[in-house]
Amino acid sequence: QDDNDIKLSALPYYSYGKGLGITSPDSIFKLNIRFRMQNRFTSLYNEDEEDGYEAMIRRLRLRFDGYVGDPSIIYVIQLSFSPNDVGAIEDGDNLNIIRDAIVFYRPDEHWNIGFGQTKLPGNRQRINSSGALQLTDRSINNARFNIDRDFGLQVYYLNELQDKLSYNLKTAISTGEGRNWTKEPDNGLAFTGRLELFPFGAFKSNGMLFEGDIKREETPKLMLSGVYHYNNNARRTRGTIGDELFAQRDIQSLFLDAIVKYNGWAFQTAYMQRTADDPITFNPDDALDSQYVFTGSGFDTQLSYIFANNYEVIGRYSYQEPHKDIEALTPQTNQYSLGVTKYIWEHALKLQAELTNTELNYLDSSSTSNWYLRFQVEIGI
Amino acid sequence: QDDNDIKLSALPYYSYGKGLGITSPDSIFKLNIRFRMQNRFTSLYNEDEEDGYEAMIRRLRLRFDGYVGDPSIIYVIQLSFSPNDVGAIEDGDNLNIIRDAIVFYRPDEHWNIGFGQTKLPGNRQRINSSGALQLTDRSINNARFNIDRDFGLQVYYLNELQDKLSYNLKTAISTGEGRNWTKEPDNGLAFTGRLELFPFGAFKSNGMLFEGDIKREETPKLMLSGVYHYNNNARRTRGTIGDELFAQRDIQSLFLDAIVKYNGWAFQTAYMQRTADDPITFNPDDALDSQYVFTGSGFDTQLSYIFANNYEVIGRYSYQEPHKDIEALTPQTNQYSLGVTKYIWEHALKLQAELTNTELNYLDSSSTSNWYLRFQVEIGI
Amino acid sequence: QDDNDIKLSALPYYSYGKGLGITSPDSIFKLNIRFRMQNRFTSLYNEDEEDGYEAMIRRLRLRFDGYVGDPSIIYVIQLSFSPNDVGAIEDGDNLNIIRDAIVFYRPDEHWNIGFGQTKLPGNRQRINSSGALQLTDRSINNARFNIDRDFGLQVYYLNELQDKLSYNLKTAISTGEGRNWTKEPDNGLAFTGRLELFPFGAFKSNGMLFEGDIKREETPKLMLSGVYHYNNNARRTRGTIGDELFAQRDIQSLFLDAIVKYNGWAFQTAYMQRTADDPITFNPDDALDSQYVFTGSGFDTQLSYIFANNYEVIGRYSYQEPHKDIEALTPQTNQYSLGVTKYIWEHALKLQAELTNTELNYLDSSSTSNWYLRFQVEIGI
Repeated sequence: QDDNDIKLSALPYYSYGKGLGITSPDSIFKLNIRFRMQNRFTSLYNEDEEDGYEAMIRRLRLRFDGYVGDPSIIYVIQLSFSPNDVGAIEDGDNLNIIRDAIVFYRPDEHWNIGFGQTKLPGNRQRINSSGALQLTDRSINNARFNIDRDFGLQVYYLNELQDKLSYNLKTAISTGEGRNWTKEPDNGLAFTGRLELFPFGAFKSNGMLFEGDIKREETPKLMLSGVYHYNNNARRTRGTIGDELFAQRDIQSLFLDAIVKYNGWAFQTAYMQRTADDPITFNPDDALDSQYVFTGSGFDTQLSYIFANNYEVIGRYSYQEPHKDIEALTPQTNQYSLGVTKYIWEHALKLQAELTNTELNYLDSSSTSNWYLRFQVEIGI
Repeated sequence: QDDNDIKLSALPYYSYGKGLGITSPDSIFKLNIRFRMQNRFTSLYNEDEEDGYEAMIRRLRLRFDGYVGDPSIIYVIQLSFSPNDVGAIEDGDNLNIIRDAIVFYRPDEHWNIGFGQTKLPGNRQRINSSGALQLTDRSINNARFNIDRDFGLQVYYLNELQDKLSYNLKTAISTGEGRNWTKEPDNGLAFTGRLELFPFGAFKSNGMLFEGDIKREETPKLMLSGVYHYNNNARRTRGTIGDELFAQRDIQSLFLDAIVKYNGWAFQTAYMQRTADDPITFNPDDALDSQYVFTGSGFDTQLSYIFANNYEVIGRYSYQEPHKDIEALTPQTNQYSLGVTKYIWEHALKLQAELTNTELNYLDSSSTSNWYLRFQVEIGI
Repeated sequence: QDDNDIKLSALPYYSYGKGLGITSPDSIFKLNIRFRMQNRFTSLYNEDEEDGYEAMIRRLRLRFDGYVGDPSIIYVIQLSFSPNDVGAIEDGDNLNIIRDAIVFYRPDEHWNIGFGQTKLPGNRQRINSSGALQLTDRSINNARFNIDRDFGLQVYYLNELQDKLSYNLKTAISTGEGRNWTKEPDNGLAFTGRLELFPFGAFKSNGMLFEGDIKREETPKLMLSGVYHYNNNARRTRGTIGDELFAQRDIQSLFLDAIVKYNGWAFQTAYMQRTADDPITFNPDDALDSQYVFTGSGFDTQLSYIFANNYEVIGRYSYQEPHKDIEALTPQTNQYSLGVTKYIWEHALKLQAELTNTELNYLDSSSTSNWYLRFQVEIGI
């Protein structure tokens, strides 16, 4: 691993193995090719529906990264092709294949300036690659509240130190409309700031960017992080993602996260919140047709232990509460998951099984309990 | 060609040349990149239409394969980009770029266990790569009756031996809805079994997976194969492909195939059949709107000889008969093709010319005779 | 750079650096992988609208090229993924990811025969890669009048000589319907001829295919070129591009171009014209609904100087006049641009800033003046 790989590894991408990479003899460029694929089979036992199954390529990604001209000028391109990566085709929308397309300038080990499209410095689990999760997917709160990817300028000041208190500060100014948006000129930007504190120093191998203590930290490591995000004149139900609202809204998001790893144990917890005034917007041509900002809050907690044979057992509990402005429109939700993961080649090749129960509690006091059992294979380089 | 290439070559992919492949020095992974492109020009002389031409990139594919962590764990990803590969865009459908995305576990030379999306072990010509055909495309019966690709579990027991009777057994349990389907939870799986018999031993270089005796077998080689496929609660007119039916149907398919090669001669024949009870389904909101399972049967026969200068002459006759349940809706069809192919670098670089006549015989005794003349270039690695 | 790279460089592709390329030890194939990405931020100050901004991945391309079997048989595949490359999704249209997919046969240094899809030999600025422009994009006249890409047969006779009068002749017969068209059989082809004259011999490094005198020609170099294009039975408003007309039209295009480079200075000028009889077509079901061939003409002139520190200053003026048949439907337009470009690694890594004023003059004598200020990063290999 050369110096550039080290620089890249400070970006929020999980990398194991070396990809198919070539550095030119005169070191004028580097192009590295990577892929990953996630195949899954799920048995569904939903209370009010016939039992069924889903079987799909959940994620399929190609990644190209490297540098051009000078090792301090780094590019990352990531393309996604699976149906759930891209979403169903909608007339008038843009093709949604590009996930990341960004240039970074890294003049030294501290500063990292990016221009293009990639993940915003949001909640920890969202920054964590979906290829480096313990369970088969992220939490229900991440799904509702995360701030996803966006196009803009990102400036990071990185100051992670070995074995002592240190921190990273990550900021972004972006369009606020989300990835591959070109519909109309924008009239309100989004501003994001994230602070990461490492009271006991940095994790092994950027361990805050993958779940599970697969590196078996010898001393406890902790990252505490907080994010504030303000999306001015947002157009979509979840800010940078979701259906289009009938009127623009200003949206604020708050994320608080902790991750601890020690001796095979890993513990993560997160609080997420989205607020907006007057979150329900109505179709001016049809007052019965509405779209609302998903306001509310949620809480996740997740614990795991990895055995010497690289089998890991994971439990997660999530609680999600819609804001009272929209509580008639969407249920309060609890989710309980139990998972077993076998790491064959760290997160790059693993087998995962997961049993999950989701309870949906409606305002009229009715409730629904759904279950699924899932098997998943993750493979990539 | 290392051992892994040999393992890969037992999968239904045509490979010539080596691709752009890299094995890591410690042999922990291999990534191989391949592409192929098929450009064609066709002059159309249809009886009831103005003469015209079609000119297009018929197929354009990128393929990534190799292993990760352990040479017994093989992945194959194939992406397709041409309009006819992907189909016209339809609102609400999924992007159809992914053809193959599957992980294989090959613990030894006999067992091959795959999980993901790829071709089902169906009729021989469908398993044969479209880049390794003699004529410019597969037969009209393949187009109507093949069972295409699907997502699921495939288990093969391979037992091909040199110069003596041997066999392969290939089975699959899959969703039955076809590639990149995520619309609704599935409530009926598909089951496929294929038996391949080699009475005189294996072909040179997996010769049952490409057409034409370009390897010039010194002794006659024969493969006989039979396939049974049961698709429970199928949703589409041709099972795993086609438009959506208005009601689900159970579909059965039967395929019988033979391929012989000897001394520059190649002969192939195939019988295909699809059956379903009550194949016509009606739109519950409009009784004049219907979709039907394409039931019926067909028969192909194809003969070729390759000269020492690598020019090959090919003839094919196809007969297709719809089941009487749907004979008012679709004609009985005969097709006659004559082709000349010049192999420059085996199937990886070839020039093809084809003259084809199609006779459509309708229930009211009217008939139509259409002709086309086509020129095609295939190139790839 | 081997002989094949030299051959490739005669094609209209800008290449700097070597890509990720591999030649097999026995020289039987070569596969080269390249990418480029163009990220931009634009502030819009339009007279009749609220100020706003656009921020996007304007272009994202992957390119695969090389040879198969024999170095005289060259392939080029280029895929595009950004929203503006591909266009918004339209129900019933084809996926528009493929830009180039063509095979070239180059028996000697003079003849170059291509079959497939790529740029037609049209106006100079269109043949110039969008990755090798001085300003952030091509002119308004190029946008309206260029003949883009098409599928067909291209035959070039190349005869560029060092330091003396020489010429290239480039011809094409193509479908006339543009890239990735498969909707209906075609009943009218397009014919294109382009003559390039080099009175003082060839430019350094194919300098007529990139803008700006970044190679600092020591003696003046000039290319004069003329193109005639006839598109029989065209179906779209700009021939090979644009919305579908309600009736087919025969379209003629004429392009005259000059480019001069000397000692850091570069000057380009172009005249473009499109003509068609009866250019307005009406919807047979609704006489208020029409689509028209964009007939008219335009004139561009562009001047630049590059300083020793690789900063370049660029000015451009464009004048566009619709034909009188359609002057009630579209304004006369003038555009003035001033740009500064910093070349870090030639066109492969550069920073661009541009200020542009567009004046739209309507038939009723009203007019609108719009401004934009843009920052753009181009990176690729």
